[in-house]
Amino acid sequence: MEIIKGGVTAAKGFRAASTAAGIKYQGRTDMAMIYAENPCKAAGTFTTNVVKAAPVKWDQEIVYHHPAAQVIVCNSGIANACTGEEGYGYCRETAKAAAEVLHVPEDSVLVASTGVIGMQLPIEKLAAGVKQMAPELDGSLEAGNLAAKAIMTTDTVEKEAAVQVEISGKTVTVGGMCKGSGMIHPNMCTMLSFVTTDVNISKELLQEALSESVKDTYNMVSVDGDTSTNDTVLLLAGGMAGNPEITEKNEDYEKFCQALNYVNTTLAKKIAGDGEGATALFEVKIIGAESKEQAVTLSKSVVSSSLTKAAIYGHDANWGRILCAMGYSGAKFDPEKVDLYFESRAGKIKIMENGVSTGYSEEEATKILSENEVTAIADVKMGDASATAWGCDLTYDYVKINADYRS
Amino acid sequence: MEIIKGGVTAAKGFRAASTAAGIKYQGRTDMAMIYAENPCKAAGTFTTNVVKAAPVKWDQEIVYHHPAAQVIVCNSGIANACTGEEGYGYCRETAKAAAEVLHVPEDSVLVASTGVIGMQLPIEKLAAGVKQMAPELDGSLEAGNLAAKAIMTTDTVEKEAAVQVEISGKTVTVGGMCKGSGMIHPNMCTMLSFVTTDVNISKELLQEALSESVKDTYNMVSVDGDTSTNDTVLLLAGGMAGNPEITEKNEDYEKFCQALNYVNTTLAKKIAGDGEGATALFEVKIIGAESKEQAVTLSKSVVSSSLTKAAIYGHDANWGRILCAMGYSGAKFDPEKVDLYFESRAGKIKIMENGVSTGYSEEEATKILSENEVTAIADVKMGDASATAWGCDLTYDYVKINADYRS
Repeated sequence: MEIIKGGVTAAKGFRAASTAAGIKYQGRTDMAMIYAENPCKAAGTFTTNVVKAAPVKWDQEIVYHHPAAQVIVCNSGIANACTGEEGYGYCRETAKAAAEVLHVPEDSVLVASTGVIGMQLPIEKLAAGVKQMAPELDGSLEAGNLAAKAIMTTDTVEKEAAVQVEISGKTVTVGGMCKGSGMIHPNMCTMLSFVTTDVNISKELLQEALSESVKDTYNMVSVDGDTSTNDTVLLLAGGMAGNPEITEKNEDYEKFCQALNYVNTTLAKKIAGDGEGATALFEVKIIGAESKEQAVTLSKSVVSSSLTKAAIYGHDANWGRILCAMGYSGAKFDPEKVDLYFESRAGKIKIMENGVSTGYSEEEATKILSENEVTAIADVKMGDASATAWGCDLTYDYVKINADYRS
Repeated sequence: MEIIKGGVTAAKGFRAASTAAGIKYQGRTDMAMIYAENPCKAAGTFTTNVVKAAPVKWDQEIVYHHPAAQVIVCNSGIANACTGEEGYGYCRETAKAAAEVLHVPEDSVLVASTGVIGMQLPIEKLAAGVKQMAPELDGSLEAGNLAAKAIMTTDTVEKEAAVQVEISGKTVTVGGMCKGSGMIHPNMCTMLSFVTTDVNISKELLQEALSESVKDTYNMVSVDGDTSTNDTVLLLAGGMAGNPEITEKNEDYEKFCQALNYVNTTLAKKIAGDGEGATALFEVKIIGAESKEQAVTLSKSVVSSSLTKAAIYGHDANWGRILCAMGYSGAKFDPEKVDLYFESRAGKIKIMENGVSTGYSEEEATKILSENEVTAIADVKMGDASATAWGCDLTYDYVKINADYRS
């Protein structure tokens, strides 16, 4: 597996474009388009929130009930959530505009939105944006990078990842882009992530590979505990790598899954590290668990704890908050058997052994916690299962960003 | 029912004292003692966190297995949680010190601690504090007020409530004090609350009255989603009001429950309104629910949402976040039938009808949201059940307090 530069245009046969449609933001791009040269098999995972944004409903229909997809149109600024039938109609109109100008079926156009909930989209601006982007579609890495920038809301950096693997003698590429960075506590998948690949694979296995991968990647991220109405991961597979079609769970399938998992893990960690107002990526590993489920429950509880996150911001080895968050997670374990470590580029330190302090050096702990990527490792000594969750610290800027997000 | 001044010393036969034992804080009181002139029936509800502080285990033993209790000793600064057998031993030593000086059985002394997790208590300072407080025990309202101040950690104000009802021709008083204000997401009861009453009642009904009351009071509060290791509500009933003993669920029992509920509700709201860094009490009412359980799930999800809380801090009518938090709560409802209102001293406004914006005045909404007590009311139009949850806004100061709590 080779890590390469690029994002959604890294795989063969994919082009991207972006534009400043003036939907809500001024002086920046706010629309992106991904176009596949041939019809793709599409897989998707979507928010489990009862309140689903209109584009989620639109995309579910296409991913679940249509054989192919070829275009993704995404806007930032307005989420098109809680917008009723009018909002759903705008999904159709956006798809229709793209279908006309790109000469593809309307039901092969996926749409996605991110931004404020409850406002209606200015559909004429969206349609104009679609027309402007179509002739500018471009397969360069730069075009993909500009698309990744256009879908940002409170994100501070664009988020891309790409990787190549050899499958049956052919080079297969998987690349993607995503955006965070508030209302992030995915329960199915993260806010918006678009992954493209040139692998040749059956639609069923493509969906299965994605569904499995999101469990250990996007679903293990929490910025603020709020599961969005718009969470969407879309995966398009165009088949231009030329490998024999993957139709069973063989070695080729495993290789593809590894590549997909690498891209999803990288994007998920980028979302966590760029959480609203964050100064640090906070990684929580539970080891020695009785089951995967237990490890997931414990790690997500710690990574979601406001008190723990504030302590990480303060570089404070306040380990009691970590044990406390494990304790209220709902998972059963013996607190008096837990060992706890902090680790970062600056070193690793054992903080707690069998539920009580080791008498560690606060100075050394603070040094380790002052890095911009910090890991807490808890060993519950019950078995061999483990899980890793990603989040970020809780800072003044999170509050600032969210106290006046709409203004 | 008459609301009166006072706290734990309001009921007949209860005295309190406090002292500066120098456990962790300097220049302030940090220990409190409540003493009943005669042995009391005791009821308690405790944290459901798997990680239970030593005092929780000590008190559970007494409340569940001993017929009477007469003293509560509480310290602030150190929580005596995650302290192993050594920490549990300090509970016994504290109780022993109080038993000796007050001439009561060791197993009639309840203990409680609040503060940093993981540090051991300086037991000699605690024992000295106990000896100093014993001769100063006093039944005045002022002594109760000073005790309420001594148990504060990051609280900005002491929290007391008291009420009187007439039961079978006798005046019965219920009074209490409690403390917040971080790591507050009680799941059984809140951090620390001590309620005293002179009612004459059986131990079984006393416990039942308390267990029922905490469901609608302390358990409906969330400051930060972190369920503490130390959550404890203790209720002592001394019987000095002279009413015939309540041994069945008759009118007398109902009256007592009303009084108890008033005190618990008042204390719970005070905890929410004085949440760490809070500038506003945030009340969430779900009405028209299918069941009480559904209403509780929905209201607690909204009151716990970081994004909603940040919006309340910004006086921003960002109602989409409220609907979003209802959507990920796990409760089933139809988002396209929900009506939403904001209400405060400044008025009431309908923000959303059947899931979409009413086109309300942002100016008017901001005026209503600028008060220091703000209510959101969501009608899900499914039935007659309702629930109310209390929390607070999320502010810079919450982060500040918790980034360097230990320093």
